[in-house]
Amino acid sequence: MQTEMTQREGAFSQIAAVIDRDIEQHITNIQEVIRQPSMSTTADGAEGIQTTARLLRDKFAALGCKDAQIFETPGNPIVFGHLDAGAARTLIIYFMYDTEAVLPGEDWIAPPLDAQIVDMPPYGRCMVGRGVINTKGPMQAFLNTVEAFQQAGIALPVNLKFVAEGEEELGSGSLGAFIRDNVELLAADDLYFPMPRQQPNGRTAINLGSKRGVIFELECSGALWGRGPGRYEIHSGYGALVDNPTWRLIEALNCLTTDNGNTVLVEGFYDDVLPPNEEQATQLDRLAHQWDEQEYKQLIGVDEFINGLTGRAALERLMFAPTLGIRGMYAGDARPGDVSVSKAIVPHRAVCKLNVSLVPDQNKEDLAQKIRAHLDKHGYSDIEMRLRPGTTSEPGSWGHVSEEDAIVKALIAGYRQFGVEPQIWPRSSGGWPGHLFQKYLGASFVSGGIGHGGRAHSPNEYIVIDGYTHSEGVRVGGLADLEKFYANLLFTYADL
Amino acid sequence: MQTEMTQREGAFSQIAAVIDRDIEQHITNIQEVIRQPSMSTTADGAEGIQTTARLLRDKFAALGCKDAQIFETPGNPIVFGHLDAGAARTLIIYFMYDTEAVLPGEDWIAPPLDAQIVDMPPYGRCMVGRGVINTKGPMQAFLNTVEAFQQAGIALPVNLKFVAEGEEELGSGSLGAFIRDNVELLAADDLYFPMPRQQPNGRTAINLGSKRGVIFELECSGALWGRGPGRYEIHSGYGALVDNPTWRLIEALNCLTTDNGNTVLVEGFYDDVLPPNEEQATQLDRLAHQWDEQEYKQLIGVDEFINGLTGRAALERLMFAPTLGIRGMYAGDARPGDVSVSKAIVPHRAVCKLNVSLVPDQNKEDLAQKIRAHLDKHGYSDIEMRLRPGTTSEPGSWGHVSEEDAIVKALIAGYRQFGVEPQIWPRSSGGWPGHLFQKYLGASFVSGGIGHGGRAHSPNEYIVIDGYTHSEGVRVGGLADLEKFYANLLFTYADL
Repeated sequence: MQTEMTQREGAFSQIAAVIDRDIEQHITNIQEVIRQPSMSTTADGAEGIQTTARLLRDKFAALGCKDAQIFETPGNPIVFGHLDAGAARTLIIYFMYDTEAVLPGEDWIAPPLDAQIVDMPPYGRCMVGRGVINTKGPMQAFLNTVEAFQQAGIALPVNLKFVAEGEEELGSGSLGAFIRDNVELLAADDLYFPMPRQQPNGRTAINLGSKRGVIFELECSGALWGRGPGRYEIHSGYGALVDNPTWRLIEALNCLTTDNGNTVLVEGFYDDVLPPNEEQATQLDRLAHQWDEQEYKQLIGVDEFINGLTGRAALERLMFAPTLGIRGMYAGDARPGDVSVSKAIVPHRAVCKLNVSLVPDQNKEDLAQKIRAHLDKHGYSDIEMRLRPGTTSEPGSWGHVSEEDAIVKALIAGYRQFGVEPQIWPRSSGGWPGHLFQKYLGASFVSGGIGHGGRAHSPNEYIVIDGYTHSEGVRVGGLADLEKFYANLLFTYADL
Repeated sequence: MQTEMTQREGAFSQIAAVIDRDIEQHITNIQEVIRQPSMSTTADGAEGIQTTARLLRDKFAALGCKDAQIFETPGNPIVFGHLDAGAARTLIIYFMYDTEAVLPGEDWIAPPLDAQIVDMPPYGRCMVGRGVINTKGPMQAFLNTVEAFQQAGIALPVNLKFVAEGEEELGSGSLGAFIRDNVELLAADDLYFPMPRQQPNGRTAINLGSKRGVIFELECSGALWGRGPGRYEIHSGYGALVDNPTWRLIEALNCLTTDNGNTVLVEGFYDDVLPPNEEQATQLDRLAHQWDEQEYKQLIGVDEFINGLTGRAALERLMFAPTLGIRGMYAGDARPGDVSVSKAIVPHRAVCKLNVSLVPDQNKEDLAQKIRAHLDKHGYSDIEMRLRPGTTSEPGSWGHVSEEDAIVKALIAGYRQFGVEPQIWPRSSGGWPGHLFQKYLGASFVSGGIGHGGRAHSPNEYIVIDGYTHSEGVRVGGLADLEKFYANLLFTYADL
């Protein structure tokens, strides 16, 4: 055992030396994947998605996956690759190769597809661009790590199965069926989603579960309503005689919520919400003392939380409350600009883009039906509700991860070796599809890593390149640290 | 008198012959002004506005205006030209050289700046493009007519003063001060706004007044509210803890109206609304029998009016009811597209573009203050209200035009000579700034002409080129008819 440990340490040192030697090339590799757009939430993102899928397949093949291949789905392709090291354990490495879109008018300090390196105090050098943190940067960093193993002539201590989907930002609508249909191919012990998750002060958290989403939009139109302009916008001079679908949509939306949208009035909306169980309540109690609320607010640019919530109550709402959110809305003349950029019309349609953020044991299909029923009951049966395809494909499959699971223990150990004690969050505020792998493969799933990035989905998405030591004395990892963390995690996981 | 009439008739025949001879060139002239964009309601329309102002000044000079000139204003330039024929009467010809914008995603059968000639059954050949009817087409047709006078060697029977503004679609914010400051230059007896106004069945109407507008927008933002995302949109995962300005704006809008927006709840909104007086009531009674409601609905693509109104009640609401209209709205991810084009964010701002359509004796500044006060009273003082500049510049100047005014009598006579008996509408449903000339110059003001066009502000704006005879036997004028109508109107007006 002593010998083995020493071997591990020696192997790790060799890999770390390769990472340090090649880090500039590794950064360039990340820039290359950022510069290839792969925005799934655009009307015309298909080209970038297809190109990126092929790029990944080629990368997997170049790393030695003999069966690197693209699986077509009803949505975007899923790219698979198996690195069989003849090891005892097999780990799925979950990647998402799609990113959010860049919206017109967003204010970026550097073009979002340039992957420029910019000094961003207090973080030092950062890469800025769409997908640098969420999540093509961390993805390529992992592939860099695997390459470092090979450069160092060190065998992987774990068999890896790469599963890269291209519609995470669309709700992973094709992933569940893909896993169900390929259980033998994907057979694995656990799953890891490589992702730097340190806060600016160096603290970090491990989420034992996640929320999930129902993504939909509501449209009110003259054509569907039978009142108002039926086919196209008309001169506002007719407004005294002609109904306006925008006003109707506003009234319909208003019947769904109250309290600035924070209390949902849809009948039965909260029926299946589970309060924290005993273990989760304890975790919340502990977290309330660990959580740096001010830093969290600063990070997302928010002065005050809903209803002035703070501490434990804020944390409980963040993790345990379902929400009905508006992502966007457009009607008529939706051009930005000053008040003079305004056409004198009665619009013929108005659209609101929404999402429900679900918690256990809420059910996607059930929730969608409840919203539909609520609208109907209030007289809005003409308002069309369009669900995003695939968002209702996996009802009831809430995952469950424990601090005792091997991959979670390996992650905690990895953080500790770096000098960081991770907080344990019962649930993340966002969603990712790790639970689908547990449902069909029994794999535990977790995400994390040292390093810092932020502004996912926002302008100026960034990832820290060199790392720094925070005034509280905790080190925040750079990209080389992240890649070493990945390598170390694989060794630790293999030995557990 | 007999001799003079004969001279007039002879002169008219010569001009009509020139119009028939040159009509293809006249159509080309119209196409040229359409192909030069002049959209005032765009963020970057300035270049087209300036170019068009210079183009018009050159046209006025070429027609013999010795003082053709551009007046700068706080808004867009006003172009002036005086054709002094040494006649007894002087008529202001009001032009607007700006147009509405073309919105992204509008469905046009031909590019909106191509001015293509397209067969549009049942209207026959039409020109399609932004501004062809509203109002650069009719404007150029008038200039064509003046040119025909000159080609025929016939002196104008009336002195003409051209006043062309470039911000009618912005609410004519600079025009009032320009008239007030140039009373001597503009001195005139009456005002005519050249515009074909036949309905598809050949019927037409003369409006004795117009509504007016307050154009404004409301914005709710995290920055102003102090809650929600303060600087940029953030990941929707934070939505359980972070307020959404979009929901707040929806609630604020909802407190302004009820009944699908058709009843305004703003305190005092209806206080100053004058019901029809005795004369107007009689006009409404008469109109209720003349109005082809079905054709009106078809023309604007509406199946049913507000609250199922028909006949006299519909007409009264159209002309005498003020409205609070929504022109457009945008928040967060406002990209059109299917439900997958939807970014997972909490928006940091939401904007609604509105207008009040006012009737006598409502007052713009008063109405704006009432809306502001209503929002404040309901707790929405953080919601910013931005008024379009200039929209509050002319409170209380409601114009008054009579069937007995010379220019109105000339217009009625012109229609009758063409075989059309015009309806008399106490007020138009839209607004134009003729009243400002009455306020400062005492000029009566009217708009009209034979010919037909439609879809002002909408996609596929069109104007009929050749004209046709409707199944009811009434002829609808083409462009040559319109130009002859203009010529005849000048003669008739001179003789009254």
